[in-house]
Amino acid sequence: MAAYRAPLKDIQFLLNNVFAVERLFASMPDTAEVTDDLISAIVEEAGKIAEGLLSPINQSGDREGCHFSDGVVTTPKGFKEAYTAYAQGGWAGLTGDVNYGGQGMPKMLSALIEEMAFAANSSFALYTILNTGATLTLSQHGSEELKQRYLPKMYAGTWSGTMCLTEPHAGTDLGMIKTKAAPNNEGSYQLSGTKIFITAGEHDLTENIIHFVLAKLPDAPAGARGISLFLVPKFLLDESGDLSGERNKVSCGSIEHKMGIKASATCVMNFDSAIGYLVGEPNQGLSHMFTMMNYERLSMGLQGNGLADSSYQIASAYAKERVQGRAASGALQPDQNADPILVHPDVRRMLLTIRANVLAGRALSLYAASQLDISRFHPDESIRFRAQQLVALLIPVQKAYCTDRGFEACVLGQQVLGGHGYVAEWGLEQNVRDARIAQIYEGANGVQALDLIGRKTVRCGGELLKILLSEMDEFLVSQEGVESMQPYLSVFNRCRQRLLESTETVIARAAENPDEIGAASYAYMELMGLTLYCFMWQRILTAAFAEQTLASSDSGYTDGLIKTGQFFMDRLLPRAESLVAEIASGADSMMSMKAEQF
Amino acid sequence: MAAYRAPLKDIQFLLNNVFAVERLFASMPDTAEVTDDLISAIVEEAGKIAEGLLSPINQSGDREGCHFSDGVVTTPKGFKEAYTAYAQGGWAGLTGDVNYGGQGMPKMLSALIEEMAFAANSSFALYTILNTGATLTLSQHGSEELKQRYLPKMYAGTWSGTMCLTEPHAGTDLGMIKTKAAPNNEGSYQLSGTKIFITAGEHDLTENIIHFVLAKLPDAPAGARGISLFLVPKFLLDESGDLSGERNKVSCGSIEHKMGIKASATCVMNFDSAIGYLVGEPNQGLSHMFTMMNYERLSMGLQGNGLADSSYQIASAYAKERVQGRAASGALQPDQNADPILVHPDVRRMLLTIRANVLAGRALSLYAASQLDISRFHPDESIRFRAQQLVALLIPVQKAYCTDRGFEACVLGQQVLGGHGYVAEWGLEQNVRDARIAQIYEGANGVQALDLIGRKTVRCGGELLKILLSEMDEFLVSQEGVESMQPYLSVFNRCRQRLLESTETVIARAAENPDEIGAASYAYMELMGLTLYCFMWQRILTAAFAEQTLASSDSGYTDGLIKTGQFFMDRLLPRAESLVAEIASGADSMMSMKAEQF
Repeated sequence: MAAYRAPLKDIQFLLNNVFAVERLFASMPDTAEVTDDLISAIVEEAGKIAEGLLSPINQSGDREGCHFSDGVVTTPKGFKEAYTAYAQGGWAGLTGDVNYGGQGMPKMLSALIEEMAFAANSSFALYTILNTGATLTLSQHGSEELKQRYLPKMYAGTWSGTMCLTEPHAGTDLGMIKTKAAPNNEGSYQLSGTKIFITAGEHDLTENIIHFVLAKLPDAPAGARGISLFLVPKFLLDESGDLSGERNKVSCGSIEHKMGIKASATCVMNFDSAIGYLVGEPNQGLSHMFTMMNYERLSMGLQGNGLADSSYQIASAYAKERVQGRAASGALQPDQNADPILVHPDVRRMLLTIRANVLAGRALSLYAASQLDISRFHPDESIRFRAQQLVALLIPVQKAYCTDRGFEACVLGQQVLGGHGYVAEWGLEQNVRDARIAQIYEGANGVQALDLIGRKTVRCGGELLKILLSEMDEFLVSQEGVESMQPYLSVFNRCRQRLLESTETVIARAAENPDEIGAASYAYMELMGLTLYCFMWQRILTAAFAEQTLASSDSGYTDGLIKTGQFFMDRLLPRAESLVAEIASGADSMMSMKAEQF
Repeated sequence: MAAYRAPLKDIQFLLNNVFAVERLFASMPDTAEVTDDLISAIVEEAGKIAEGLLSPINQSGDREGCHFSDGVVTTPKGFKEAYTAYAQGGWAGLTGDVNYGGQGMPKMLSALIEEMAFAANSSFALYTILNTGATLTLSQHGSEELKQRYLPKMYAGTWSGTMCLTEPHAGTDLGMIKTKAAPNNEGSYQLSGTKIFITAGEHDLTENIIHFVLAKLPDAPAGARGISLFLVPKFLLDESGDLSGERNKVSCGSIEHKMGIKASATCVMNFDSAIGYLVGEPNQGLSHMFTMMNYERLSMGLQGNGLADSSYQIASAYAKERVQGRAASGALQPDQNADPILVHPDVRRMLLTIRANVLAGRALSLYAASQLDISRFHPDESIRFRAQQLVALLIPVQKAYCTDRGFEACVLGQQVLGGHGYVAEWGLEQNVRDARIAQIYEGANGVQALDLIGRKTVRCGGELLKILLSEMDEFLVSQEGVESMQPYLSVFNRCRQRLLESTETVIARAAENPDEIGAASYAYMELMGLTLYCFMWQRILTAAFAEQTLASSDSGYTDGLIKTGQFFMDRLLPRAESLVAEIASGADSMMSMKAEQF
């Protein structure tokens, strides 16, 4: 297996040339010290960790998997040492609240670090992501006391966090959860119930595990409005906040045997009158979770993108080395038996598809992350609010489209290697298995698509989309008169227009028949994703053309970007036409089948 | 995991209503006795074997995998018993030459049996498929002596066959193989070399294993024109044709650790002056293999389709039982907490996509199989020749398109189950892993696409396509005046026209730039596949409307077919528009990237 290399050049180009992050961060007091130099230093160091610490235990972790015995989960060889090194490097608290030991770094930065971690070792990355999500929930909704007692150790990585939502009968529909929280006399609660699919629910990486658990208070309203959020530590703390040595009544019943992410422990967690503490307001558990979920969903898109990049690296290296057959236009290496398979157009099609989507996907993720940063750090409330609205619209697309394209990329990368891609040795089949989960967890992609078109579009009459369209228009105006960009802009504009028309179609139809929303949802998410990727490519192309005029530029690199952008327009964007037709066909051909005809 | 059920109703409808096989078989003397009753009896019996013998050891076989120790391969628990029962049932020789103990049955029949076997247990099916392919090669190209000594035992299933083509450095490009065959003084040869990815190269299911090996004679011409075919038994025979007890010098060096089909032994085979016998003419090995390859490739498409059907069965049953959320149009089960997820349009989209493609894929496979049967059994040479030409065109599409749609179907089925699809319990993640190989082996799908557009289209100036178009036109003429069909026919006609135009575009461009062929290849294969699926749906719809007029018809069933066909036209066929645009964009955006820019 080819070793994973952090894509530092691409990252620098996006941060500096496309997004001009230093200017953005300088505009907000809390990020003013995040200079290009600081970013470069952090990204490079994170790249070294991905390459040197995480990648080397990726295949071995998959092969060995997690072990379960009598409630104890042991992670594969090397994971504990790597996690300790990761924690000691200060990475667990990178974006954390500075008042509790976090480093207050922006999400644009940590997004790139997450992508590299997922690319190098998705199972490992999950332990870190879950902790980040848990600390975010606690820092936003927890009481001062809870924050002081738990956040510093979680930011230090000596304790880790989980999210306990799903139950055997309640996944997407969390309103049906049965886990109960009964108040006791000490201001805390006793939680009882069973949670499944709990990532990092039990493991040997940290001294303590802090569970964030959705449960119902006595007499809570029915459904989603009766869910509260609780903090349930594996080991209880003493008065001073240290480990008391007393084990709480929460335990791991078993771990799942899964298609992939085998080194990530996916646990059944049993709560048997476990002591827990209310986080935030009673019955507001779901909405408290949702803040965190935007960040978690962004991470899943990054997993898809990271594994796609890893697959690209392996497949492109293979395509340059593996000789088989001849170039159609005549032998490239007449003195040898055959040419590298990179001479074949169809091999290039597969590689360029991955590459074009990885770059656009990373740009879209950074774009969404920038809105998260603005909504967190910007001093102007109206600007924060606008960014929040963009986040609400962008995240479901970024999550679903980047994970779909990521999985597709891993499959394509595997295909480049033929039979060698199907055997374990090269690592590509593991990438396929590991990438697959990102389309499923944190809200399956169909649920993201429904969120996008339902709550985020139809229910608000397309208001959020208008904000996005104004961002696109602003860009289009900025490019008026830029000659090199005109062919691309017209293609983009057409796509943007098609998206708008499809949106209006669906909004109009939904008023007549609510099933029109779900019937359009997936194709609509794909159309929005494709349009956003096209938007990102416009911005990359603009930056590449601008960079090319500089004497200092690496013209081979920018030329490669421009050609990849052309491939995107020629070969990937046409899919928009069929998506528009699929949306236009409406709900009838889905809904007319009777249940017994399936 | 839901148990696999043989799709007998769908099969009967296709055989009787769509393809009228009794009439076809009655028109050829060698198949005149294959009546509807005989077909029904055989299909039903095969269904029982798939359900009762193969399906029960599918998951356990995946979990256990094959064992390798000191050259000995042991299949998972239950495989040997199942294989023995399968052989004793007479299934190994079903399509075999009647002069050597085969049963001379048509491919249309065995295709359905193969699909069911792959659906129930792909690893198991591979042992049988390889043997069928080996016997076909031997019966077509072997000497009378070789046929008499080997075929009866292979048809009886007491010996099994393999195909030894690939070497570490030579997969697609077999011209580079290094395995050598040196003549000895006894009319036989001594083979030396290493073959990889040899399915069923070593196992414990049969008394002997007969390898069909590509190798080079001394002073053979370079490249593909210098390859000969040899029969190399694991155990040598005595004069009377019984096992001599002497082990030939062919041995298994190791087995691969693969993504899926884990109960199928994929072997590295070492030939160390192993005794072999020339099959057919010297240096004609590749062309001897190609006859067999049309059958093998058809089988791979059937694997994709079978696993898709299996995934559909599990996912549709789950979608009817799993309650989560509410129908958008109001609660379906107001007295319960939630509705079955089948109420959600997007779940229906996933299920209908699978179902529409499974039916079309099975029909296309039967259509290709019917041409194989005509080319084998028809008394009129010109009709045989025409059928051979259709086979040449159809097989690469059927192989690539059915396996792509099959894999996609398994992924969609898995998605319907959400997290439950990602864990091993339900069997869907195994289907995904098992289906993936079908896109890769027997000529990766990119190679099929290139074969289709290169050798089968551009190089013959579109002559083969004209035959297919005339079949389509004949159908269109037959439907003139059939009112119920008119909306479908116009959609089909447009698609047919788009295919023709794209073909002409590529042929014209290829004259200027040979890379245009490869650049168009994959989208062209997909366009042809989609058009053929549309053609198959026309025929299914015609049959369904006709059946609906009969008092004896099951109107719920035919109505379901018609609705599924409408879904195909509304939701799947629009992809053709973007494929046409992708093809039209040409080779530049693939070929302009320099190697170092990848």
